[in-house]
Amino acid sequence: MRSLVLLCTILVLVPVSLASKKWHFKWEVGYIYWSPDCRENIMIGINGRFPGPTIRAKAGDTIKVELKNGLPTEGVVIHWHGIRQFGTPWADGTASISQCAINPEETFIYEFKVEKPGTYFYHGHYGMQRAAGLYGSLIVDVADGQKEPFDYDGELNLLLSDWYHQNSLLINGKGQHNCSLAAHLIPGSSTCRTKRGECEPVVLRVLPNKTYRLRIASTTSLSSLNLAIGHHKMMVVEADGNYVEPFSVNDMDIYSGESYSVLITTDQVPSSNYWLSVGVRGRLPQTQPALAILNYHPNSPSKLPASKPPVAPAWNDYAHSKSFSYKILARQGTPKPPTNPVRQIALLNTQNKINGYIKWSINNISLALPPTPYLGSMRYRLRNAFDDRKPPENFAREYDIMKPPINPSAIQGSNAYKLEFNSTVDVILQNANALSGNVSDIHPWHLHAHDFWVLGYGDGRFSKKDVTKFNLKNPPLRNTVVLFPYGWTAIRFVADNPGVWAFHCHIEPHLHMGMGVIFAEGVELVKKIPKEALACGMTGKMLMNNHLP
Amino acid sequence: MRSLVLLCTILVLVPVSLASKKWHFKWEVGYIYWSPDCRENIMIGINGRFPGPTIRAKAGDTIKVELKNGLPTEGVVIHWHGIRQFGTPWADGTASISQCAINPEETFIYEFKVEKPGTYFYHGHYGMQRAAGLYGSLIVDVADGQKEPFDYDGELNLLLSDWYHQNSLLINGKGQHNCSLAAHLIPGSSTCRTKRGECEPVVLRVLPNKTYRLRIASTTSLSSLNLAIGHHKMMVVEADGNYVEPFSVNDMDIYSGESYSVLITTDQVPSSNYWLSVGVRGRLPQTQPALAILNYHPNSPSKLPASKPPVAPAWNDYAHSKSFSYKILARQGTPKPPTNPVRQIALLNTQNKINGYIKWSINNISLALPPTPYLGSMRYRLRNAFDDRKPPENFAREYDIMKPPINPSAIQGSNAYKLEFNSTVDVILQNANALSGNVSDIHPWHLHAHDFWVLGYGDGRFSKKDVTKFNLKNPPLRNTVVLFPYGWTAIRFVADNPGVWAFHCHIEPHLHMGMGVIFAEGVELVKKIPKEALACGMTGKMLMNNHLP
Repeated sequence: MRSLVLLCTILVLVPVSLASKKWHFKWEVGYIYWSPDCRENIMIGINGRFPGPTIRAKAGDTIKVELKNGLPTEGVVIHWHGIRQFGTPWADGTASISQCAINPEETFIYEFKVEKPGTYFYHGHYGMQRAAGLYGSLIVDVADGQKEPFDYDGELNLLLSDWYHQNSLLINGKGQHNCSLAAHLIPGSSTCRTKRGECEPVVLRVLPNKTYRLRIASTTSLSSLNLAIGHHKMMVVEADGNYVEPFSVNDMDIYSGESYSVLITTDQVPSSNYWLSVGVRGRLPQTQPALAILNYHPNSPSKLPASKPPVAPAWNDYAHSKSFSYKILARQGTPKPPTNPVRQIALLNTQNKINGYIKWSINNISLALPPTPYLGSMRYRLRNAFDDRKPPENFAREYDIMKPPINPSAIQGSNAYKLEFNSTVDVILQNANALSGNVSDIHPWHLHAHDFWVLGYGDGRFSKKDVTKFNLKNPPLRNTVVLFPYGWTAIRFVADNPGVWAFHCHIEPHLHMGMGVIFAEGVELVKKIPKEALACGMTGKMLMNNHLP
Repeated sequence: MRSLVLLCTILVLVPVSLASKKWHFKWEVGYIYWSPDCRENIMIGINGRFPGPTIRAKAGDTIKVELKNGLPTEGVVIHWHGIRQFGTPWADGTASISQCAINPEETFIYEFKVEKPGTYFYHGHYGMQRAAGLYGSLIVDVADGQKEPFDYDGELNLLLSDWYHQNSLLINGKGQHNCSLAAHLIPGSSTCRTKRGECEPVVLRVLPNKTYRLRIASTTSLSSLNLAIGHHKMMVVEADGNYVEPFSVNDMDIYSGESYSVLITTDQVPSSNYWLSVGVRGRLPQTQPALAILNYHPNSPSKLPASKPPVAPAWNDYAHSKSFSYKILARQGTPKPPTNPVRQIALLNTQNKINGYIKWSINNISLALPPTPYLGSMRYRLRNAFDDRKPPENFAREYDIMKPPINPSAIQGSNAYKLEFNSTVDVILQNANALSGNVSDIHPWHLHAHDFWVLGYGDGRFSKKDVTKFNLKNPPLRNTVVLFPYGWTAIRFVADNPGVWAFHCHIEPHLHMGMGVIFAEGVELVKKIPKEALACGMTGKMLMNNHLP
């Protein structure tokens, strides 16, 4: 526990040119006592607070974060989710992949450009530190002189997450545990007593008859979410930092790792406030919905809405979820995918058992991250730093995705796919039945440092002829995409970013149970990796023995 | 969670000479689910088990432990408590002092000689990892051809510890939470239901009319303990690996960091079993005593003793505790202390507040460990690796130890005392009132890598004339000594071990709240420190830049 004085954010503005700025932040990660849902607990915070500070910059700006690890015994890294990291692959913030974990009391400097406007966020990418509270928002505005392709009068920001003692949903780090803000309207629920301001309900202050851009990102550790605002429609305009063809919905699904912008118009009865409600998708909810208040000026924010909070669709109404995902299409002007992929990799997602432990596997290999980060070991061609056997491009023709695995055993491996630089690659994500019968989970897959085109979704097992149904006309660009139960999802991307990058299920425990692969491309083009990113494992030993360039 | 096959202890016997052996162990530290007190919880174990394996060697043997850190996000080190580490100061296992913490997936090799027979143990020395279960026994027998100065027919080993959800005491890693093995004899307590063998009561199997050596060590995180065996007297013969003048007691106090051997004779009614009971000293017990069964052959071990378990003296009966400590005197033949110390350092133990946080301080400086371990930064004379201002040799004459501090504020510092090599040093530990009135805690102080002579104890404030009362005739050699509430304890040692060593309160949270100092001696004589011990902080950076020899 160190001086609060040291913990204050120091924010220095260094104008680099008229067009772009460099933002310099000093952060210290540490344990804090916090009451995100009115129950005090130990969390991981930044500069003494939860959630971490919001970074706001313009496209073309440079972000520099001097990150000091103030956790007494744990390492730490931070991943800048959705940022491409062109030329700075060591700043992607993935332990064992792009860098060595930052040891206690050590400082690592993340410095990278934010190239594309959009709604992003950052989070811990080591162990279960995201679940422990290590995250915050990262918002990139259009560059000076540029304009968004839609108009709005104001902006609101929602970072959605979940928090476990049993289970609470959080909006901007605030929630309610075992109680409801709308207790007077929900039979059997109890009123919340807020505490120290840390779990006061989120109030979204708006003026009547205006249009607002609501930025929404989900960094949940486990939950898939649905969001709705009583009596207000939402026009979806952005997904993962990419413009989409606007469409209007009453409620929307948000999977972990996704971000959206929606436009809402405050055209309802202005004497009332309205509920914004966030519920659970894909598994039986164990918690009350998270609620926030859309507060029409000049009503008091404590004036509770008269009508009940919107109720999320049934958790297992996948038709509803699919219908939402299928509506997401690229806005005109979005780059189109190349038409001829040179490689198609099919990745079967299965639940397995290894030595009695439940794991997730990809083509029967459960990802086990090596002690030496891939970026360094590949760049310097170290032998035996990881299991470099070529992982399978496909899975067995006879595998029945509708049933539990006949043989649930799997092996652990490094799952590193080497991609030809600048090549176009298709990936087919194939879902399957888990270990128990009649269970198949939702898996939102996130690709680091790339956007990909979502070419299509389907139910059941992917077959060759499904290629003909791919949407090559206006597929949306995303960095995260959902894989529905018993279904497939097809994506395409260009391997144009020198580095080593994770592609994995964004449900944190699924990743740590092996649900991911590694894509390596143009690693020989990577420039000098900072030593601090290499100071562990075999690269650490070679640095100590002066055997690295 | 990795292969259990990998986790098995590999034990290779390498005969180095007829006289001494080298023991080679491969250990992996990791999280395990365990039920030490019949309630399953997550703990830190070694090779999948709790407590860690018992090491057993002979004086003169070499121990080599290849320690792999299998904790996914935390660093780790292991301290070999009571081992002198002559010539291997980097193997003392103290993060920030003797070495860098071992990062996840990394392996560090501890290799050291065990020179003196005795009852020792090992434990984590980073963060609160001892409280999390990282410990085990280390027993050193006399060398071949040598003989202990007492006789016995058999041997039993008890490693005492504590475990917190609320609070349980453990014997050999087994205990009872919210229940008692002796429930039928204790009104209001409930019967224990044991689970999976992990919390089955400890059974000490003995034959009637024999003499047993009971080895007892306490690695408690917080609790001071008292141990008694129904109807059996105990003859104390060893303390911290040093023989003491035998004396007989009905019960004995054991502070965290201490070890003892006692001889018991199984001369009681052989048709009965007997309770061994461990209770709490120095603070109001929050838990039932820990019980084990002294099982006379051929009785069934499940035959519960007929009489009640021995009851520990009142927790605040310090006269009883002092009476026990004062009886511990060196056995004839023990080396005597040099008569002329060149330096006397007085260390006032106070509770303080720094930036609103409660801390413990020594002469008003609360120990804050630096990111670069002292051993490396001192050996290579790095600047600014720690706060190298000379810490005070004494405390204010006017400080009233009987009252809470008038000004409770303190500062943080590195508390490093440089001792002249081979010089004789006296340390006076001075206790005082804590922040609240009428509270003064027990503090067992442990010195790494040395034995010291306990010259005396006293009540109130130490004064110059107390020196005349020092026991120079037969002061016991120890590595841990208790500081009683409102009292002082005087020790003497020779700074003859090149290295940097911690001297600290062995109550784990007290150490981490600043209750310790560092002694550095003959650091220029330290031979080549393994790079793995230096791979962090400023030494890590210098290694990476090839600036170290």
